[in-house]
Amino acid sequence: MSSFKGPRGTQDILPGEVEKWQYVESALTDLCYRYNYKEIRTPVFEHTELFQRGVGDSTDIVQKEMYTFTDRGDRSLTLRPEGTASVVRSFVQNKIYGSPNQPTKLFYSGPMFRYERPQQGRMRQFVQFGVEALGSDDPAIDAEVIALAMNAYKELGLSSLKLVLNSLGDKKSRSRHRQALVEHFQPYKEELCEDCQSRLATNPMRVLDCKKDREHESMHTAPSILDYLNDESRAYFEAVKSILDRMGIEYEIDPNLVRGLDYYNHTAFEIMSNAKGFGAITTLSGGGRYNGLVEEVGGPATPGIGFALSIERLLMALEAEGITLPIEDKLECYVVSLGEEAEQEAAAIVYQLRQAGIQVDKDYAGKKMKAQFKAADRLNAHYVLVLGEDELTNGQINVKNMETGEQETIALSTIVEHMKRELKGDA
Amino acid sequence: MSSFKGPRGTQDILPGEVEKWQYVESALTDLCYRYNYKEIRTPVFEHTELFQRGVGDSTDIVQKEMYTFTDRGDRSLTLRPEGTASVVRSFVQNKIYGSPNQPTKLFYSGPMFRYERPQQGRMRQFVQFGVEALGSDDPAIDAEVIALAMNAYKELGLSSLKLVLNSLGDKKSRSRHRQALVEHFQPYKEELCEDCQSRLATNPMRVLDCKKDREHESMHTAPSILDYLNDESRAYFEAVKSILDRMGIEYEIDPNLVRGLDYYNHTAFEIMSNAKGFGAITTLSGGGRYNGLVEEVGGPATPGIGFALSIERLLMALEAEGITLPIEDKLECYVVSLGEEAEQEAAAIVYQLRQAGIQVDKDYAGKKMKAQFKAADRLNAHYVLVLGEDELTNGQINVKNMETGEQETIALSTIVEHMKRELKGDA
Repeated sequence: MSSFKGPRGTQDILPGEVEKWQYVESALTDLCYRYNYKEIRTPVFEHTELFQRGVGDSTDIVQKEMYTFTDRGDRSLTLRPEGTASVVRSFVQNKIYGSPNQPTKLFYSGPMFRYERPQQGRMRQFVQFGVEALGSDDPAIDAEVIALAMNAYKELGLSSLKLVLNSLGDKKSRSRHRQALVEHFQPYKEELCEDCQSRLATNPMRVLDCKKDREHESMHTAPSILDYLNDESRAYFEAVKSILDRMGIEYEIDPNLVRGLDYYNHTAFEIMSNAKGFGAITTLSGGGRYNGLVEEVGGPATPGIGFALSIERLLMALEAEGITLPIEDKLECYVVSLGEEAEQEAAAIVYQLRQAGIQVDKDYAGKKMKAQFKAADRLNAHYVLVLGEDELTNGQINVKNMETGEQETIALSTIVEHMKRELKGDA
Repeated sequence: MSSFKGPRGTQDILPGEVEKWQYVESALTDLCYRYNYKEIRTPVFEHTELFQRGVGDSTDIVQKEMYTFTDRGDRSLTLRPEGTASVVRSFVQNKIYGSPNQPTKLFYSGPMFRYERPQQGRMRQFVQFGVEALGSDDPAIDAEVIALAMNAYKELGLSSLKLVLNSLGDKKSRSRHRQALVEHFQPYKEELCEDCQSRLATNPMRVLDCKKDREHESMHTAPSILDYLNDESRAYFEAVKSILDRMGIEYEIDPNLVRGLDYYNHTAFEIMSNAKGFGAITTLSGGGRYNGLVEEVGGPATPGIGFALSIERLLMALEAEGITLPIEDKLECYVVSLGEEAEQEAAAIVYQLRQAGIQVDKDYAGKKMKAQFKAADRLNAHYVLVLGEDELTNGQINVKNMETGEQETIALSTIVEHMKRELKGDA
């Protein structure tokens, strides 16, 4: 009989590890709540065309990395490779733009899927948490999204962080810059990689982002988008920086910061880990403004900005900085029993204690008494309750506080009240 | 430009609705914690063969309802149609059976996928929450899983519930019953539906479960599994019932209760809603014992039992019983500002308040002061802070308690401490 394995590039998150995920997700939810972002949940798959349109046909994601399949009704569906396109689709389909509370501030958290070569921090199924603010082109909301992103890391204790900022300008600025880029790179075209040769025609800005051609001499002298921003775009960028300054959030400007997706404009940012030994991929998260995307997906003209972070990489960064999350692994109560009759009664007592809000477990493996005590010890039980045949006959149960060593014998009929008093300070 | 829609049979869960999901999931997690079940997360897709083997080739799920596709590496993958097979696969692959704490008590919650005709309470992507206890054949753990399932509903306030119980016996009992079923149904074979005709050969017990042939006269006189239980199976069932009795959990016995999956044996149960107007599908959840499944998936002989519930149907049941979950929709603080300089300063104050743990929002739509107050009102803000140009010049800010109507003017430099005192009772 062959044994099954999970698909390549996926992982199981097991007890012992899952508590970190729970802790981080709960901290992020709490953070969003404070920033007044509300959760949205969209399906795991969407019509393929949504990502072709909403992520961009020329991106690596759409060209090489999507899990696309045909369902039994002959629809082309794709497991979502990122979260923004789905949120924007939902914003349009559910006419959320019609709600009086604008901008619409949303967050999401869930599995995303990209068919890439698996490596540390890059799984085929990974978990992304992100926020989207739709309906405002106030520079203060750009600063808010960046602040939220930085806070996500800082509140968990991370400090070796670098915030990198750029402006990609508006359409006009980008169009002038695009022309300059083409003119700049054209003489070197044959020396650039195949992907860049085609990028030069489709989206020359993404040449700046190429991992293969990073060291080519033409990169260092490439025209900077910041020199091509028109007055409006420059004023917008200045306002974003000014608000970040007032907040006391430090950043570096990198004119070569280009995001992998086609739809960004104006503000673009990434957060990196500076921690030693973090690994090859230092980017923890990224985001930016995507005015125009809502229209692309069939909605009314609506500005938008958002960011997404990888929970895997966040956990890697915590580890690289040696941060231990305050996770407790303990059990309030363990009931030891001896004999078949006592075991059945113990099952009922365990049930009553749980009904009363107490965390409790017992043996289900027919262990001898000594082994049951060992199990209680391994589970870090605060109290051990012992029900033998004698106790059962006398209608009593023995309660041992494992922290102090104190023991007392309690009437079986009052055990729930007694334990509530012991553990919760009430009865 | 065409507008995109989410795929048929999927849904978006939006703010206003998502809070119910959060509440229910948090209650279920809390419940599991009290029962000492720990979370496990497995991938959204698995190798197709896992479900063929672990759910069963003869089931409707495997034959008709799976989302199966080939990835770019030519693997046949399937979006999980249920949770048990994946958990068992992970239990084997990660050798969890080798841990000293046995049985292994796990819970999961996440999206599952079945290609069915969508209707109320039956979506193509739906959320299942479930638990699995692997490694014990103590009847007390059967009772524990059933108790947990019932508690999941009761603690959320549901009362119109029916617990239905059956025993499918062990292999020997089932084999004798199987023969009796074949003999019983053979004379009516031509009158039964096509599916049942083939079930008679592959898995005759599932004829009892058929929706089409439910009213056929031969159903009512079919041999009951309970008459075919051998001594061991009967004793096991009696022990489970006896513990449920001690717990005070009421149940009905239904010898025709057969679960849709191939791998069940001994204890099988379902929980139904009795609420009026609940709809056609009254089953809220189901589960049972699956000794043998771990071996089927390549692991060592290990007994197991579990159950799963649909969160959608749980929410439907709450609605049918008119239960409102205690969900608050309010904002601690809203900052109103006037003028560009004051707005930038407001953004920084909002940031500082959030850093201090306060939930706060501001305007990002260039609204006039009156409209900002309206927004604060719509968001149910407890406090409104006003920063006009005068206040900014004087280094002050106005604080209004919207519940009492009280107002005071506070030095800008002390606003964070002031609001912490007001809202959290500390400084």
